[in-house]
Amino acid sequence: MITVEEAEKIILARLRDYGTEKVPFEQSLGRVLAEDIKADRDLPPFNRVTMDGIAISFKAIANDISTFRIKATQAAGEEPLSVSGHEECIEIMTGAALSPALDTVIRYEDLTIKDKMATIAIRDIKKGQNVHTQGSDKKSGDIVAAANQLITPAIISLAASLGKTELLVKTNPRIAIISSGDELVDVADKPTAYQIRRSNNYTINAVLNKHGLQADMHHIPDEPQITRKQIDHCLHNYDVILLSGGISMGKFDYIPKALDDLQVVKLFHKVKQRPGKPFWFGSHANGTLVFAFPGNPVATFMCLHRYFLTWFRQTMGLPPAKPVYAVLSNDFSFQPDLDYFLQVKLNFTEQGSLTASPVEGNGSGDFANLADTDAFIALPAHKAEFKKGEVCSVLKF
Amino acid sequence: MITVEEAEKIILARLRDYGTEKVPFEQSLGRVLAEDIKADRDLPPFNRVTMDGIAISFKAIANDISTFRIKATQAAGEEPLSVSGHEECIEIMTGAALSPALDTVIRYEDLTIKDKMATIAIRDIKKGQNVHTQGSDKKSGDIVAAANQLITPAIISLAASLGKTELLVKTNPRIAIISSGDELVDVADKPTAYQIRRSNNYTINAVLNKHGLQADMHHIPDEPQITRKQIDHCLHNYDVILLSGGISMGKFDYIPKALDDLQVVKLFHKVKQRPGKPFWFGSHANGTLVFAFPGNPVATFMCLHRYFLTWFRQTMGLPPAKPVYAVLSNDFSFQPDLDYFLQVKLNFTEQGSLTASPVEGNGSGDFANLADTDAFIALPAHKAEFKKGEVCSVLKF
Repeated sequence: MITVEEAEKIILARLRDYGTEKVPFEQSLGRVLAEDIKADRDLPPFNRVTMDGIAISFKAIANDISTFRIKATQAAGEEPLSVSGHEECIEIMTGAALSPALDTVIRYEDLTIKDKMATIAIRDIKKGQNVHTQGSDKKSGDIVAAANQLITPAIISLAASLGKTELLVKTNPRIAIISSGDELVDVADKPTAYQIRRSNNYTINAVLNKHGLQADMHHIPDEPQITRKQIDHCLHNYDVILLSGGISMGKFDYIPKALDDLQVVKLFHKVKQRPGKPFWFGSHANGTLVFAFPGNPVATFMCLHRYFLTWFRQTMGLPPAKPVYAVLSNDFSFQPDLDYFLQVKLNFTEQGSLTASPVEGNGSGDFANLADTDAFIALPAHKAEFKKGEVCSVLKF
Repeated sequence: MITVEEAEKIILARLRDYGTEKVPFEQSLGRVLAEDIKADRDLPPFNRVTMDGIAISFKAIANDISTFRIKATQAAGEEPLSVSGHEECIEIMTGAALSPALDTVIRYEDLTIKDKMATIAIRDIKKGQNVHTQGSDKKSGDIVAAANQLITPAIISLAASLGKTELLVKTNPRIAIISSGDELVDVADKPTAYQIRRSNNYTINAVLNKHGLQADMHHIPDEPQITRKQIDHCLHNYDVILLSGGISMGKFDYIPKALDDLQVVKLFHKVKQRPGKPFWFGSHANGTLVFAFPGNPVATFMCLHRYFLTWFRQTMGLPPAKPVYAVLSNDFSFQPDLDYFLQVKLNFTEQGSLTASPVEGNGSGDFANLADTDAFIALPAHKAEFKKGEVCSVLKF
């Protein structure tokens, strides 16, 4: 049986490139930027007034002038207005562009204005005050947002400012989620006393949605011909197949045989971990990847986060997620020689430490527990006793 | 001028109730749950087999029986099959429901099977092994997810399992985002040398989208009649108006007058903070709230997170966000008697501490900086010197 690290390595050796596409910038939130966004002009594009008041030349202050004749008023967006001499000023609004002859702004609060004359009521005036200097944020041509990062509201803001109505983003993989098994009934149906409702497919879909991904859902009954036909269809119409359940030694699991018949090469089956030991991963010659998660809900949930999302980030060209570490808030013991992904509740102390409190459920079938936790912590296989205060790696969900 | 805490108190005294609505469970991700979700039957609903293998009665083991005649095979979803005596077993699949006569499952890996006879190849067998006991996660009628929490993939999983095809969620407020000013041109248009493109409205919209909210965007030109008419329309068609810019002492800011004419009561104007000092907040008699953020992008961004989203969480009945604290990674000095919201980059140390590294831009106009940071830290007004190692409160975005 391979380790978690070996499984990850095998998966990350199968990064794919699904190309790029253009999307309207306002619909690009959460996508992966595939181009450098460059400033189309200086930022700010002119010496920008940051307070309503009057604009003067600082030379007037140096010459002890403190009362100015208001020559004109300039709104934001208007062509800059100049003055004829140092004793004149322009009444000016926030956002307006300063004339080259002017360099300093005195805000209304620091003025008295009477009969078109403005008198400065304060002493300490600095050259360039209340002016956001042209190009002080970025110069024309500078990269303001580099490719290969998630598009955040801040990047949408930049795109708007720079007139990028469309952004080049990475194309997402086409994903099929497959559930299987006659014991699973539709959510809207009433199960017999021995059946349960399908849920893993919805859970997987919700996690994908949270990460900006869409997927199609398929359900395969316990019937070999239909199983083969549907998997064949998915292999040729999707880039990634996420299976939940159906890969085991069970007599009614027709999926392993169908995958084998359809030339999906098994790259591993079983990982030294709990939950999720029976995790299976394979690849078709056409590039389609098959992540076959165990049917237990917590195992599927963990493997989806630990393996699929890690693969997805790297396939999309994103840097690996920043590692998160937390301090174990009480002793915990786990004997089996497996990496254990323990469900925890996270909290920050007032000292700025992240603590992880174990919330133990009843094993990998207990999804009721998941709703009360925030993350898994990874407890390595070679140890059995974990002490309060030890630091663990965190897998947030 | 009021403090940040006073401003927050005034805003949080105006919580609203926008009612509830039903949505298909698979479209409820990120909404606020407005009902308790209860188990419709025990979880698991039967003694559920967790490994493929054979099901036996533990009494057989107690009687030193180790070879069993396979009476029949039972798939998941099928009615439980029983045995005629302790020397018989049922070949059984993961997910199947155990007959009351059987209580223990031996997995294939621990068996040899020949001529319909299964012989156990291991010694240490525990009663109830590989069985997920009925009701061990939740009992029928138990609350599995309480009202007033965000709907996560784990809750969608629960809803699916329990056959909740629809969930009752809190109705979101109807939100209008208003930008204003003739200096702002549309993103698709080419600004003159003295104009800039609209961006704050898109930034606000993107942040709202990230929090599962939708909004309409309006732009008001610098013209008093149109200003009044459009604000009047918004006051009567939305629950919340988010303005960016236009509330200042500037000569061309027609918005304050329009708000006053239309009987929006000013609850405060100006807060002892940077960025965002000119933040204005008011309420109309019909309940509509007006958050008028300063026009500078970083100020708008900060106020939206610090005030609007805090109000939104509480209005929706969510508990206040868990506080996050980080350790300042270098000395920082800020003299003015204002609460300072400093942009930082967050990182976890391998000791499980969160550190905040200041990334200073060029003041509240510098949105290019926002894309490189993760959060603001709040530096209180009464102090000027902040030392490396001090702990600060974090406002993540």
